[in-house]
Order: sequence, then structure tokens, then C-alpha cells
Amino acid sequence: MSLLKRVLIGNPISTADEGHQRIPKKVALPVFASDAISSTAYATDEILVVLLGQAAIGYAAFTKLIPIAVIVAILLVIVITSYRQTIFAYPSGGGSYIVSKENLGSIPSLVAGSSLLVDYILTVAVSVAGGTLAIRSAFGFDNKWTVPICLACVLVMTIANLRGLKESGAVFAPPTYIYVISLLALIVVGLVRIFILKNISEIDPAKVSEEAKKLSQGAKGVTLILLLRAFSSGAVALSGVEAVSNGVPAFKKPESKNAATTLIWMGAILGSCFLGLSVIAARLKPFRGESDATGIALMAEQIYNGKGVLFWIMQISTFAILILAANTAYADFPRLSSIIAKDGYLPRQFSNRGDRLVYSNGVIFLAVIASGLIVIFKGNISALIPLYAFGVFTGFTLSQAGMVVHHVRLKEPRWRISLAVNAVGAVTTFVIALIVVVSKFTEGAWIPAALIPIMVVFFRGIGNHYDRVREKLRAEPGYRAQRHTHYAVVLVGKLNKGVLNAIQYAISLAPERIIAVCVVTTPEEERDIQDQWVTFDVPIELHTISSPYRELTQPVLKYLDEIDAERADDIITVVIPESVTKVSSQWLHNQSAFALKARLLYRPHTVVVSVPIHVDAEDDIDLV
Amino acid sequence: MSLLKRVLIGNPISTADEGHQRIPKKVALPVFASDAISSTAYATDEILVVLLGQAAIGYAAFTKLIPIAVIVAILLVIVITSYRQTIFAYPSGGGSYIVSKENLGSIPSLVAGSSLLVDYILTVAVSVAGGTLAIRSAFGFDNKWTVPICLACVLVMTIANLRGLKESGAVFAPPTYIYVISLLALIVVGLVRIFILKNISEIDPAKVSEEAKKLSQGAKGVTLILLLRAFSSGAVALSGVEAVSNGVPAFKKPESKNAATTLIWMGAILGSCFLGLSVIAARLKPFRGESDATGIALMAEQIYNGKGVLFWIMQISTFAILILAANTAYADFPRLSSIIAKDGYLPRQFSNRGDRLVYSNGVIFLAVIASGLIVIFKGNISALIPLYAFGVFTGFTLSQAGMVVHHVRLKEPRWRISLAVNAVGAVTTFVIALIVVVSKFTEGAWIPAALIPIMVVFFRGIGNHYDRVREKLRAEPGYRAQRHTHYAVVLVGKLNKGVLNAIQYAISLAPERIIAVCVVTTPEEERDIQDQWVTFDVPIELHTISSPYRELTQPVLKYLDEIDAERADDIITVVIPESVTKVSSQWLHNQSAFALKARLLYRPHTVVVSVPIHVDAEDDIDLV
Repeated sequence: MSLLKRVLIGNPISTADEGHQRIPKKVALPVFASDAISSTAYATDEILVVLLGQAAIGYAAFTKLIPIAVIVAILLVIVITSYRQTIFAYPSGGGSYIVSKENLGSIPSLVAGSSLLVDYILTVAVSVAGGTLAIRSAFGFDNKWTVPICLACVLVMTIANLRGLKESGAVFAPPTYIYVISLLALIVVGLVRIFILKNISEIDPAKVSEEAKKLSQGAKGVTLILLLRAFSSGAVALSGVEAVSNGVPAFKKPESKNAATTLIWMGAILGSCFLGLSVIAARLKPFRGESDATGIALMAEQIYNGKGVLFWIMQISTFAILILAANTAYADFPRLSSIIAKDGYLPRQFSNRGDRLVYSNGVIFLAVIASGLIVIFKGNISALIPLYAFGVFTGFTLSQAGMVVHHVRLKEPRWRISLAVNAVGAVTTFVIALIVVVSKFTEGAWIPAALIPIMVVFFRGIGNHYDRVREKLRAEPGYRAQRHTHYAVVLVGKLNKGVLNAIQYAISLAPERIIAVCVVTTPEEERDIQDQWVTFDVPIELHTISSPYRELTQPVLKYLDEIDAERADDIITVVIPESVTKVSSQWLHNQSAFALKARLLYRPHTVVVSVPIHVDAEDDIDLV
Repeated sequence: MSLLKRVLIGNPISTADEGHQRIPKKVALPVFASDAISSTAYATDEILVVLLGQAAIGYAAFTKLIPIAVIVAILLVIVITSYRQTIFAYPSGGGSYIVSKENLGSIPSLVAGSSLLVDYILTVAVSVAGGTLAIRSAFGFDNKWTVPICLACVLVMTIANLRGLKESGAVFAPPTYIYVISLLALIVVGLVRIFILKNISEIDPAKVSEEAKKLSQGAKGVTLILLLRAFSSGAVALSGVEAVSNGVPAFKKPESKNAATTLIWMGAILGSCFLGLSVIAARLKPFRGESDATGIALMAEQIYNGKGVLFWIMQISTFAILILAANTAYADFPRLSSIIAKDGYLPRQFSNRGDRLVYSNGVIFLAVIASGLIVIFKGNISALIPLYAFGVFTGFTLSQAGMVVHHVRLKEPRWRISLAVNAVGAVTTFVIALIVVVSKFTEGAWIPAALIPIMVVFFRGIGNHYDRVREKLRAEPGYRAQRHTHYAVVLVGKLNKGVLNAIQYAISLAPERIIAVCVVTTPEEERDIQDQWVTFDVPIELHTISSPYRELTQPVLKYLDEIDAERADDIITVVIPESVTKVSSQWLHNQSAFALKARLLYRPHTVVVSVPIHVDAEDDIDLV
């Protein structure tokens, strides 16, 4: 088991090695920006899915694509400019959670934290679903393989991430660059063929599918709500923009400057690819049904005149960058949940770092929930998208609003300009969040809208609980613990070497009084144990309890109550001999004792002592 | 929880009340014989499913029905005669397991026990599937409801059986009698209309389904293997015949005589109904596909000229008796597994009687496995049947073979005749078991054929384990336990009232030496705890362990090894303070302690003491 763990996860890393885990910009770009960049793989498609699929407005859809894309690009510029300020203001990592905690207080920070956690989970589910669709567009395998392939991807990533951040960067960096270069090449060749060579035609919908052919002929009117819905789908292109500002401390020094440069690069790549793709799509008109080939696949086939090498590189690197995008969430989810856990709003487990400096608990939790979503939504990216954008923009809004308060509080040089930038960001992203939740409410946006408040209540509940416990147990200087005397009760079944040794041990605990208790079902059993008591000349008193219902727990508890009534300040020490065998046969023993112990935990003044009887011990001295 | 349990399960019954649970013959018949009688509801059908469905021999199928039914009926007479002797030889209950244990030894008895356990599970699955098919034949609901309805039936029965045997009899008795009367009425009316009034025609296959119409026109030759397969399906009619002999002690006195009478009644009803149905079916020719209406439903509709009141009574009582048949397994499975558990071949849990004298563990186990089978085989009775008969006849064979040895050993009056009867039974049922497993091997008989040996190995493994543990721990008179001294190690985190009280308690255990151990991650944490130690003037030594990997278990184990090296005969008592809160928030505490405790269980010379800190206690004195 331990060997297996080492092979899969690698050797442990000590705290002292942590500094070496810092990553250079060229590795940071794929690690922190792949999520944002990868959304180019599906954002254009998802706008079209709304316009074509939900409303069947036919060719009219493509005239709306470029305006929507331009608005999304402007939004991108606003958000990037806002986050650039956050990076310099919070060089130790300025995610929405931290920024809103410092500036807006506990509740807004928990809203931001919940939003981000929900989004990280969706990033994994959406990206993996998108990646799988990309390779399905190339290979054309049956839809029934979608969910198994998605789940296999999640599994591989989980193992990769349990191995540690730096190696993740090294493994995942090349695909990002191949994707970006392939996509830029596709766009350039596409633009040249469309606008200069003019030797390319629209994609024939009949070639794609019957469904696409039918869609191409629909022609309903375009409504405002439809445009807002399409825009909401396009706005998912911005998801992941905040990843860089969360990860500032992971950059090489000077951290803020390197992070800001990376952020700008990311914005430039994302914006130009998204706009370029939209322009090409508006001309080539890649009609698709929800489960057909992706727009990029259809356009690559058209631009490169068939499924050649460049087509395959495009599709495989699309798959790769989407997996890498999911990996961003693997870096950020455990990091954020450990921060929340350290603040006392999540169980302490989440703050325990596992081996190799990754927060294993968070990684595993993320993998489990994302897998669940994939199964429930059958790996269909278009079904997952409506859940996605609300959390993203809620997080943005709180982060920018926090920055506004930050500027007002600190009044650093040129704070008025900074305040204006962040204020514009906050208002814009808030409006987008509203648009998303209203226009997509019934299609799935209600899920994060309901889940985030529930999570906040849950986090607060945990926080209040830990506060209360800490307060209750806090000892003032000068506090002295009460002195207790103690009774010992040894639970015995049949007498054997193990039980006799356990009794001997219980005597060594120097209790004020010691008594052995045996639960019997029949008078014969009672006689047997009393005979054995004489045979072995056991030096302590025996008390038998008759239990005609064959129950153990209730009669023992009742007897303890009787003993308890005798003296007030006593602690009762219940000594339970437990047979210990090899792990493989342990389940054959102590099940009744386990139930009793669980119950005794809640009994006041009661301490449980498990005396292990090592059945496989070499000689008697090793029995206990 | 406890109230819910009482409402659903009823009040507990003491051992003294056990005698009152004895049941009269008229209740015993439904309780113990319903399984066997209920097989008339599907046995004829299953013969036809083989002849029609697998080979499509068309009308020729019906000429083979009566000869096969007659052979099954002869087999029934042989088996009943054999079991009648068992009832008198084993008035305290003579299932195959007990008879083969006493006469053939441990391995054959475990084979018999495994066969019966497998069969009881299949009885539940097959009967529930058959019952659901019966009401589907009447109501005509969609096949997608089959599995949910089956599972609901299992759930209801599980609750009914956890309530206790006698009430089960009272609840389930009426339907059996209604079924038997309805079926006899159907047969009599059918025979009269066919042979005397001669005013009834064959069922038109086109009226049933397209599939049936196609089947009626097929005409392949009849092969021997096909006949053997059909016979194997018909032989399931005998399943459940052993139930009466298992349950002898549940009868009113004189037990054996009452049980034998019940057995004869059961045989008479089963045989006459099965033969009568086969004769009618051979004339009315109820063609059916695997998931269409049952033969009984088709014939009832034809005989009663449509779906009148008598048709509905027939179908609903068929459903009811099949549920009752499943109930037989609910009575026998837990009984047999508790017997096997008492012999040490199953975990001790199975021998614990729950409330109300039923063996709750066995009941729940049975329900879970049967539900699994229903889900896997989609509630299709014809898919389950091939798994069924092998175990039944293996059990019969071992039981009869055991009786042969019994007669040779005891040589009671007229033992030679008895021996001959049981020998004929043993040889016949052995041949049938072979026929079943060979002819149905690939259709599912391989499952019990593989499972039964695996179960035997498993039972033997458990038996050997318990034997070894008992032997290892057995104390000879005069044995004296070793005297140990003990070290106490108190595990502390931050100092608070709870920890201070736990230290005080640990001191009261009078250890030779006591030391507090604190695992720290950073030098700051180490300084903090040392400062607190001075502040609170803690009277015991503090040892800090630095754990840069943030692990708890390994560093603590390593330190215990160091302490252990100092003295050889010491027991180390590890005192762990554990916060106890309301059950609902308990999961927020002690997870790390739990992992450590699990590991310490396997460490020699180590006793774990959990000192609960009752966070919600009223005052300090109640803290521990």
C-alpha cells in the first residue's frame, strides 16, 4: 500500500523544499492561464448552440455572433485590467476570497469562496466534457463512451496532481503551446483563405448531420432574451481569469510583476483567439447539433480541406488544453479550501497538507464531486455551461468590490484612478452575473444560485461550531483540572488468556474499585463464567448481567448508571479486551464492542480503554 | 430512531416468550409450504419458455408438456417420501445442513449449507420476479416498472420479517388459501370445459403478441438436450420442499407428526395443481414470449371468458403466494445462517438474535443480496430460473445421503426399508442435479456451481480462524497473567480545559512514568506549547515532535518505539483526549485521532485510552 502510494504519488517533500516549487512565467502560463485560454475551444460553439439549438433562427444566428463576441472581448479587457490591480495589491495571493475577506467582511468572503469552489468543480466537469467532445469530433466514437472517457481523464489528473504542482506544470506545459499555435495557425489560414484568397466556401450543413440541415432552414425572430442567453454562454470565456491572481506566490520573484505579465499575455491570447474564431465562424457557418462535432473541428476540416495532419494536431491539442484547464482547478480548489479551512469554516482535514505539499483532501474531494457532475449530466458540455457562469461572475464582482473598498481604505498613490477601474469592473461583472442568472435560470443557473447560499450557511455553521468549542474549552491562566477518582469496569465474555491479561492490566491502573462484568443470555452461561472465575482464581469481583434480548449495549449502560449513582465525582474506566488479528481477519472480531464504544463516547464521566489482545503474538508476554 | 424502530419492528420479546411462537398446522402450511406450492405459478410456464422460446418447436412443444410434468410429479413423490423420514429422525429440525453435518461430516455439511443459502436468496429473487410478472399480466403496466416493484416487495417483506415470525404467518396465511382454491377452481372449470362441455378453444397466439404468433409457426426437431433443459426448468417446482423439515421445532406438539402431515398436504396440493395445469396448458396452448403475460393469466382469461372477477382473484392471489414464498426464505435463511454461525463458520454477528427473536442480520443480508440479483437480472424470472435448481438438488442429495448413513449407523426398527427409500431419493436427486448443471450450464447454472465451492472455502476459512484464535487464547487451569508496569503517553495539541483534565486523569492511572507528547509543524508552534506548559504549570514532562510533513501517525509511532526500547516489559498507555459534541457535529472532530487509533490497535504492548471531553457539559466537573 505504502509502496503503491510512493510509486503513484512520489516521495514526500519537506517544508524546507517549498521554495523550490516556485515556477517561471513560461510554466506559469499553462498552469494558471490554460483554464481561461481553453474556453476558446467551446465559447463560440456555446453561443451558437443557444442561437441555433434553442431558437432555430437559422442563418440569422451567424450575423449575431460577431457583435456578441466583441462585447465579450470588451468585458475581458475590463476584467483583466481590474485583476492586474489586484495582483499588485495582493502579492501574497489575491483571490476573491481573500480580497473580500479583508475588505468586505466574513459573509461576502464566504459568498466569494463558495462561488469559486463551485466554479472550480464546474471547470473540471466542463473542461473534461469539452475535451472529450473534441476527440470525439476527430475519432467519431460512439456517445456511450463519453462518460467513461471523461471519468478516466479525471482519474489520471487526480493522480498527476497528488504527485505535486511542479511536475504537473512540466507535464502539462507543451500541449498549451501547441494548442495556442495550432489555433492561431487555423485562424490565420482561415482569414487568409476567406478574405485574401477567397477560395473557401461555407460548410454544407447536410454534410454534418440531418439535424444541422434542418437547423439551417429554421428562421424564427431574434428576441432580446435569446441574445442575452447567447451572451451568457459566451461569457464563460472569462472563467479562469482570476486563477493568475490567486497564484501570485507561486511565481518566481518579482512575483507581482511576473504574474501581471502572465495575465496580460493570457488576455491577449484569449481575446485574439476568441475574436478570430468568431469572425471565421460567422463566415464558414459551422452548424452543429449538441452532440455532433465541435465548431473548431468542422472549421479545421473545411480550412485544411479534410482531416489532415493539421486537423489532428488541432483536435488533440484542444483535448490536451482542456484537460490542462481542468488542472487549473486542481491547483486552486485545494488551495482555496485549505485557506477556508484554516479560517475555521471547513473541517480541519482540508487544511492538512498531504505528502508532496499538495492538499490531498481537497484534490480527492474535487475529483469525486466533478465525477458526479459528469455522470449526472452525461458528459454533455452544453448541459453544464448554464451552471457555470454565475459563480464566475459572482466571484469577480466581490473581488472588484473588495478592491474598491481597498482603495478607499488605503488611499495609495493614484488611488482614484484605480478605484474607478475596479468600480467599473465591479458594476460590469455584477450586471453580467444578474444577466446570467436571470436568462439561464431554468436551464441550470438556479443550481449555483441555490447552492452558494447553502454553502455559506454551512461554512458559517462550521465556523460557529469551532468558535464555540474553542471558547468553551479555553483555559484561563491559573486554571487547575479537577481531581477525580476512578472505578474500573472490565467487560468479559468467556475467560481466556487475553481476558486474564486485560484484567491484570486493569488492576495496574490503580482504580478505587474494580469489577468484571459479563453479559449472559442463559442461566447455563452464567454458571459457566462463575465456575471459570473460581478455576482461575481471578482476583476481582464478578458481576453478571442477564440479557434475555441478547443485547449488549443497553444492559451495560444500565449497569454503569447504577455504579455511577454510588459516587458523584468518579470517572468510570471501561476496559474492553479486543482480539487483534491480521488486518484481513479483523472484521470477524469486536463488532459488538465497536457499537458499545461508539455509545460510551457520549456518556459523561466515562473513559474507554481498549486492551488489544494480539492473537498472533509469539508468546504470552506479547499478548497485550 | 428508537421510536421508529419500535413502530416498524414492534416490542422486544424475551427468551421466555419463545414457546408461544409455536405455530399450528393451518398457519404452518402457508409459512413453510408456500414456497413449494407457489412454484406452480411459474414451473409450467418455464418448461414452455424453454421449448418455445429457445428452440421454437411450435405446436410440438405442447405434446412434450405432459410427459415432463409426469416425471416431475414422480420426482416429487420420491423427494416427499424421503423428507418424511427426515422429519421423524430429526424432530429438532433436519435441514440438509444438520443432517449432513451429523452423518457426513463438516465439508458435505458446508456444501449443503452453501447450496441452501444460495437457494434461499434465489427463492426471494425468483418469487418476487414471478409475483410481479403475475400482476403485470393483469394490469399490463410497462416493463420499466418491474424492477422498482420487485424492490418495493423485498422492502415490505424485510420490514414484516423483522417484526417476527408469528405475525408473518397471520399476515400471509389467507392469500395462500385463496391461491390454492382459485387455482383448483381454475383447473376444475378448465377440465370440465375441455373434456365434458367441450366448449373451449385454443388460445389464439395472434391475440397474445406478434412474437407468440411467430413462435406458434416454428417447427424445429426436438432434441434430448432440449427436453433435459425443459425438464430442468420444470424441476424448480420442487424447490422449497425441504422447508417443512427445517422448521419442525416451530410446529405445535407433537412436532414431527404435525410437520409430516403438513408435508403430505403440501405434496398433494403441489402435485395435483402442477399436473392439472399442465394438462390444461397442453390443450389451451398458452403461447407466450418471455415478458408477456403468464400462462396462468392467459388460461384464466380463456377459461373464464375474459378478465372477470375470477381472473383478477387468480392473478392477485398468484402475486400474493409468490410473495409468501419469498417469505419462506426469510424464515429459513436467517435460521440457517445463525446455525452455521454458531458452528463458527460465519461471523458471530449472524448468531446474534435481534429484537423479537428474529435473526435481524440474516434478514437484512438476504434482502440486500436478493435485491442485487433482481437489479442485475432486471427482474426477469426466466433469466433467474437456470441459477435456481442446482442448489436445490445439491441440498436434496446431501440430505438424503446423510439419511442413508443415519440408517446404517442407528439401525432403528425397519431401517432397511427406510434406507432404501432414502437411497432412491439420494441417487435420483443427484442425477437431477447433474442434469440441471450440465443442461443449463451456460445459461446460468455455472453461477451456483462456482459459488457454492467458493462459499465452502470461505466458511472453512472462517471456521479455521476462529478455531485458531480459541486455541491460541485458551487458558489452562492455573494460568496466571503476566504483571506489567505501564508508561503513559498523553497526546496533546493546544492546551485547553479538556486537555488539562485528560492529563489529570492520566496521572490518576498511576503509571510508572508519564509524558505529554505534542506534534508541531513549525518552531513557532513548538514555542507556543512550551509557553503554555509554563503558564498552566502542568505537572508532567512535555516532549515535542517536529513533523515537517504535517503527519501525525508516523512521528508518534516512531516516538513510541523509542520509549519502548527503554524497558522490555512495559505496556504503553496512549491517552488521547477527544472532543465530544452533539452527534451532528462530531464529524468535525478527532479524524486524525481516529486514524492514529486504528494504527495503534496493531502495535504490541500498546493500550489506547480515549478520554472524552464533553464540550457541551454544564460545568467543568462534567468535562471528562
